[in-house]
Amino acid sequence: MTKEELKILLVEDNDDHAELLLMELEDKLKDIELFRVSDGEEALDYLYRRGDKYSKLTNHFLPDLILLDLRLPKIDGIEVLSTIKNDKNLKKIPVVMLTSSDAENDIIEAYNNYANSYLVKPLNFDKFSKMLDSLAEYWIEWNRQPN
Amino acid sequence: MTKEELKILLVEDNDDHAELLLMELEDKLKDIELFRVSDGEEALDYLYRRGDKYSKLTNHFLPDLILLDLRLPKIDGIEVLSTIKNDKNLKKIPVVMLTSSDAENDIIEAYNNYANSYLVKPLNFDKFSKMLDSLAEYWIEWNRQPN
Repeated sequence: MTKEELKILLVEDNDDHAELLLMELEDKLKDIELFRVSDGEEALDYLYRRGDKYSKLTNHFLPDLILLDLRLPKIDGIEVLSTIKNDKNLKKIPVVMLTSSDAENDIIEAYNNYANSYLVKPLNFDKFSKMLDSLAEYWIEWNRQPN
Repeated sequence: MTKEELKILLVEDNDDHAELLLMELEDKLKDIELFRVSDGEEALDYLYRRGDKYSKLTNHFLPDLILLDLRLPKIDGIEVLSTIKNDKNLKKIPVVMLTSSDAENDIIEAYNNYANSYLVKPLNFDKFSKMLDSLAEYWIEWNRQPN
């Protein structure tokens, strides 16, 4: 990604996980704008710029990367993923699943719906932090997506 | 990925690039089996275990990761990608495009065909090596795909 200011959309219902992610990623990355929503419906409202909260935003742009939890209130992570990957304007955005589940069925369903990557949150804090290092370096520094 | 021995399929027609990749990745990773094919037709022959060369292999398994060049003889990289991502048995395999092209159209076409990631080979050797570090760490150490 070569943009001046990167935008990451974090879809995460767990406040502790969201806070850790925000802290770690903002610490690692300058020129990054990390926006968090806490359920699947709000994720789609944001992406489609709809509803009271997002339809009137003027400084709203599509994210360069989406970090998507699997188990989400209102609309499930897989349904959000499937909506994104079936939409001609949104499918180009890399979606990294970031979940506590390492169940084989969840992994298969994510790839069947064209998740770009699947990460399991480590329980150990240091390991979680190392994973976020690798995530940030790979997707921000090296991966390319359309402007 | 949690397997004991990882298998990477490298689809690359440029011998110099292939040699560099093989050297760098094998140096970084123990317990890795890197198999190279040099055109798109051979990539599909390998994945579908067909043709004189692959139909009789007994020690052949699907790769855990595919590194796919874009410009390839016989069958183009995008067609190989599209075939993989439309096949219910193959679509779960992460496909990282690894190409010299940073053309916007190529990037868009790759994501439209569900490339998992898109990397542009840096001309500078040190940068190429750093990119392969990040690639190996992210996809081998952190990313998960089905067994």
